[in-house]
Order: sequence, then structure tokens, then C-alpha cells
Amino acid sequence: MALPSLLTPPPVPVELYVTNRQKLLNSFRQHLSDSSRPLQGIVLLQGGDERTRYDTDHLELFRQESYFAYLFGVIEPGFYGAIGIDTFVTDLNTLHPILTECRVFKSELELALIQFANDISSEAHVQVMRNVKVGMKEYQLESLFLHHTYMYGGCRHCSYTCICATGDNSAVLHYGHAAAPNDRTLEDGDIALFDMGAEYQFYGSDITCSFPVNGKFTSDQSLIYNAVLKAHDAVILVMKPGINWVEMHKLAEKIILESLIEGSVLVGDVMDMMAARLGAVFMPHGLGHFLGIDTHDPGGFLQGLGRPEEPGLSSLRTVRDLKEGMVITVEPGCYFIDALLDPALKNSKTSKFFNVEAVNKFRGSGGVRIESDLLVTANGCRNMTNCPRETWEIEAVMAGSPWPIVSKSISI
Amino acid sequence: MALPSLLTPPPVPVELYVTNRQKLLNSFRQHLSDSSRPLQGIVLLQGGDERTRYDTDHLELFRQESYFAYLFGVIEPGFYGAIGIDTFVTDLNTLHPILTECRVFKSELELALIQFANDISSEAHVQVMRNVKVGMKEYQLESLFLHHTYMYGGCRHCSYTCICATGDNSAVLHYGHAAAPNDRTLEDGDIALFDMGAEYQFYGSDITCSFPVNGKFTSDQSLIYNAVLKAHDAVILVMKPGINWVEMHKLAEKIILESLIEGSVLVGDVMDMMAARLGAVFMPHGLGHFLGIDTHDPGGFLQGLGRPEEPGLSSLRTVRDLKEGMVITVEPGCYFIDALLDPALKNSKTSKFFNVEAVNKFRGSGGVRIESDLLVTANGCRNMTNCPRETWEIEAVMAGSPWPIVSKSISI
Repeated sequence: MALPSLLTPPPVPVELYVTNRQKLLNSFRQHLSDSSRPLQGIVLLQGGDERTRYDTDHLELFRQESYFAYLFGVIEPGFYGAIGIDTFVTDLNTLHPILTECRVFKSELELALIQFANDISSEAHVQVMRNVKVGMKEYQLESLFLHHTYMYGGCRHCSYTCICATGDNSAVLHYGHAAAPNDRTLEDGDIALFDMGAEYQFYGSDITCSFPVNGKFTSDQSLIYNAVLKAHDAVILVMKPGINWVEMHKLAEKIILESLIEGSVLVGDVMDMMAARLGAVFMPHGLGHFLGIDTHDPGGFLQGLGRPEEPGLSSLRTVRDLKEGMVITVEPGCYFIDALLDPALKNSKTSKFFNVEAVNKFRGSGGVRIESDLLVTANGCRNMTNCPRETWEIEAVMAGSPWPIVSKSISI
Repeated sequence: MALPSLLTPPPVPVELYVTNRQKLLNSFRQHLSDSSRPLQGIVLLQGGDERTRYDTDHLELFRQESYFAYLFGVIEPGFYGAIGIDTFVTDLNTLHPILTECRVFKSELELALIQFANDISSEAHVQVMRNVKVGMKEYQLESLFLHHTYMYGGCRHCSYTCICATGDNSAVLHYGHAAAPNDRTLEDGDIALFDMGAEYQFYGSDITCSFPVNGKFTSDQSLIYNAVLKAHDAVILVMKPGINWVEMHKLAEKIILESLIEGSVLVGDVMDMMAARLGAVFMPHGLGHFLGIDTHDPGGFLQGLGRPEEPGLSSLRTVRDLKEGMVITVEPGCYFIDALLDPALKNSKTSKFFNVEAVNKFRGSGGVRIESDLLVTANGCRNMTNCPRETWEIEAVMAGSPWPIVSKSISI
């Protein structure tokens, strides 16, 4: 069912890892000179080991530990790697924060791999949209995604277990795991929320598309979808070096709340809602996270930077100011979750904002998330993900249009 | 590229696990009455826990521990299960061998799942054969297999990492793992050895097909292939309750050696070759193993039954007499492995048997394995695997014939 891809994977030269090691050594030398410690030592890392399943001889498919992959690119289990600085004393504390900070800023060779993982995954998302039909099982769409990215992209691993949620499951943030294994049958009128990303040569992608399984948005679905899309686009428009990520999260919340006011789901002043942290009722997760060799790449919290305590903000995976070379996901969402709505409707601080009848109409319909992977550039950011996002684009692609859509004036 | 399947998965009633628990309790009661211990106790098992990859929050897709799956069928991580017998004293030794022996003999409900895993995997092997082309990557055939069994069979897990070996890789017994990731390009004249089996609701399959990637056997390929097929078929013809598995291994070895004599690769008396353990040079693994919730299902060695020490026989995963209800793989193979041939050619006990020129001609061509899953019945055995096996069947299916092949006299 999946069509061949025209993508060619980028080369993976050893320079990729040479550059990563050199970057670490430079950071290390800087750190040692700052702390007036002698320039000496060996960086020693243990790579991952192959594992069997419990007390059987069933070997699980090995995937290298991420820090080890970053520095050496070794695919085999059971290795140690050493990088000489000069003679050495044992120090178990200095390396980790320096190495983590190296990983936050991506080289051109790293970006080429993240871009390819995004390209093949974007293409696979489009394939899934084209093949969705009422009556299918959610896991059949997972299978199509996996097949496309492996068959045509050589991606044996995914960045994370595929979330193929439809109907009310789309409000379950980490659906798709073993205890909720993408096994629902798609029904007419469902929203699908498919969060799937392939990994290529250790480097990942993390992409969510939301769309109606029957190919046509209802007006209610459009209301929620466009609220999320507007937040997604607004954040991307504003992102650039120096912008703080907590502010981006609040911007997304504010735009979603404004759309819900416009759609008569909420009533009142948006700044009052923000003060009452109402946004976290509809988006109970952070706006995004660093992406690289790990889906949730490390480095989101510098030493001394605390985690906010307010609802919603406490889920943020970073609170840093953006800098050039960071890759971060932008993934606003809006969900109707009884376990969050019921307390908010009972709480005197928040109950006044709800148009109860309108909110109740949306219960059971799940939610929407739109997620792209962004590279922070010198003056702004670049979207590495390329999926249909506007409702008309989604409807056209699901009806068979090519992607990207060729405008009529230039089509032949 | 994969065509839809017509298979319908069998139901998975709770009776499956009720039966398994009842069988355990009956065995337990029998054991306790034999040992004149009081009929009391609680069987307590800990299920598997979800795991993250190293120090990240990357959750690996959970698959339940096999003993726990056998008794409770629970897909979720983090569970404990208890079966009451009567009041109890702690005993960490009695349960394991009794529970293992229960797993050796399959119920009808278990057999239905193993049969389905075989049906969908057999079908997927045929799909792979039909789509193989020179110039493809080995992993693309793995992707086709995985997609067919998940898309049309709902099989999210495989019984083991797919072995998609071509050319000389087909002599590497556990090819396909992370350090040898099915990434060779298929060349004209290659033999493919594809060892792949899907798992359905915990129960597995384990199937190997060998065939020429260009769709036509050469006479040399036919010689080796037919040697292995003759061994495979002869063992299946003889298998029945009471037959000893070590004897089956030796039977397979003998037939392969005879075929190599007939093909002028070896020279001499086959019984002399058997005495010199020459068979292990060409088949350096055991003939087969129990199959069930684990690919290498436990119970192959009863307490007190030692492991043979001779080359080849020492790799056997069971030395037991066959009994009705066992499911066991039959997987003879014949490989040309320099690391085994070179010492055998130097050893005065074995060098005399070789037609050196003929053997050298086969070096670098890899090997052949044919593997089916057999249920031991009251009077014989039943092959649960259904793949093209005769060379003409393989060539016909690769050229587009339907499978099973409809004979011309009854085709319409």
C-alpha cells in the first residue's frame, strides 16, 4: 500500500563523530581553564550491552546508549570508548553536564540526519493519511508508518513507540504502549491523533498529525484543530535566539484559550483565564522539548535553573532561552479530558469560565495535537517537518492530492 | 507491496489461561501427593516491568515475561499474579520445573495461536519471495515481512529479530542483529536465507525459507538445497511419540552427508563420517527446539538429563523423547563456513573425506536452512508451517504462481 519514496539518505561520514568529540574536548578545555584545573584526563564511556528478555535467550534488538552513540557512532553492543586529554585523575562529575550541553547544539552533519528522519517520517505520515479508512484498526496505520520509514528510509528504529490514537483515545497522551496497543477500530466521525517519528542512524524525529478519519473536518473539529494550529504557527513565527521557552508555552496557551472563547466554549477575559492557569486544563503537557539522539534530548535544565511549579508549566521539559543550533519540538494540543474538566468545573476559581453545555458537547471526542521539529537559526527558526497542516491541505491530501500540493496556476 | 491476507485471527478466550492455570494446579497436586507434602500454598509470580533505555525516559515497548503470560495473559507491566492452593509455606524451588513441564505440552487453545502465527508468517514469507529483486537491501524484505504480519495479522512482536541473510551472510547463524543489521545489497546469484516468525498473543512461530534471489536455482544451489530438504522431510516422516530427538539430529546429518557424497563434495563411507562427527562441520547447530511463548521454549532438558558433548550434538536444545502435544522446530541446514572447514581440512581424521576442489567451489556461497514448526500427534506429527519447499514450487511462486499452487488439471 505504501508508495516508493524518492528520498536518498544522507551519508554518515566519520567526521560526524570526530566533530562531536572535538566539540566535547573544546568544551572540556574551556571548562578546565575556567576552573584553573590542569589540562589532563581521559574521557571514558561505557557503551550499551545487549540484553536478553528475563531468563530466556531471547535477544532484544540492541540500540546503542545515546551519549556513546553521540561520541562514537558505534552500532555494536559491549564497547568502551576513551578520548585522551592528557594524564588523568578519576572524576565522575565533570563530564556529564559538559557532554550534555554539547548535544544541545547540533552540527550540520547532525542536522542532515535529523532532517532525513523528518523527511521520511513526514512522507510516511502523508502515506498514512492517504490510506486511512473507517473500519481499519489503529495498529494498521502504525504498520504502514513503520513499513514506509524502514522500506524506503532504512529506519529500523522509531524514536518512540507509535501513538495511533483515534476517537477518545486521542486525549490519552501516551497511548500506544503495551497496555493500550493501538487496537481500536476506526469509526466514522473520529479524530485521529498520530504521533510517530522514525530514527535514522541514531538521530530522531517527533511528528504529530491530527485529522478526521473520514477525510472531512466537522465544524467542531475545525474549531479545535484551528485553535491548535494557530498556536503552533504563532510560536514558530516568534521563535528566535533569546526568546524564552516558558513564554512560548504561555503564548500557545493564550491563543488556544482565545480560540475557545471565540468558539463560545469558554466565556470571560483571557488574561483572567491565564492567571487561573486554565490553559493547563486543555493542554496538560509542555509545549515542546529538545530533540536529537533521544526523543526527549537532554539539556533542558541548566544547573540552577528550577522547574516551574504551576500546572502545565511544571510539565515543561525546558525553561531555557532559545539559542541558534537547538532543535526543539513545537507541539501544542487541546484535549477534552474528564479527569481535568470535572475538577475545573467544580473549582470556583475556574468554573465561571466554562460554557458547560458547549464543553460537554466535546467530551468523548478526544483531542488534537500538532507537532513539528524546529531548528533555531540565527534570526528565527526553520521547520524541519513537512506535513499537511491547514484543514484544506489535509482534506485535499486525504482525497488523493499530491503532497506538496501543486497550485492550479502552475500545474501542467 | 504486500497484498491483503484472508486470514482471520483465532479468538483468545480467558479459558486459554484458565486451562493453563488448571494444568499447573493439577501437576502441582500430583507432585505434592507424590512427595507426600501437604496440599497447601500459593503460586506467586511477578510479571514483567516496563523499562526505560538507560538513563533516558525512552520507554521500550513492553512484552510480558513468558511464564507470567502463560498463566495470566496479562499484557500490562507491573503486575503480580497469585494462584491459591491452600495455606502456605514459602518454597522457591518446586514451582519452576513443574510450570516448565506444563508449558511443554500445548492445549488446543494454545495450538490455535501457534497455528495462526504460523499461517500469517508463512503467508508473509511467500510475499517476501514474490517481491525479492536483485538490488534490494536485505532489510527491505524484513520490512515487508513485518508489515504483512502486523497489518494483516495484528502481530506487533516477532518471535525473534528477523534474519534476512543473503550471499555469504546466509552462513552466519544469527545474522540480523544490531551489529549485522540486514543491510547488504542483494546480488544476482545469491542464495537468501530468511529466518522470520511473527508472534500472536504471546505465541510464536519460527520459520526459515531459503531460495535464490533471482528466482532460479543453479545446479550447485539445488544440490545443497535438496540435501537439506531431504533431511527436513525425512525427519518429519519419522517423527512420532517415543522417537528420541538426538536420533533425529543424527538422521538429518546422515542424509545431508549422503547427499554431499552423491554430489561428489565428499568422498568415503557415511558411517565413518558420522563416527568422525563430520556432520557438525556442515550443520553446526541443533536440529530444532521447543516452540511456544518463547521461541526457544523451555523444558528441553529434564532434571538429570545431561547435554551431549560431541560437536553438533552439544548444540541440541533438547535430548528428550518426543511426546504428543510437543511443538518443536525441524531446521536442518548445510553451510560452508571457513572457520569450520579449514580445521576439518587440516585434521587427519576428517581431511580424507573432502573433495577439496568441490568444497572450495562452495566457499563464499553461504548456506541453506529449511525450518518448519511441527506438532507431535498421537501417531506422528503435523506440519504447522505452509511455505513452498520443493525447488519447483519456489521457482513457480517467485515467478507469480498462487500459493498453494493449484494443479493444472483442477484449475479453472
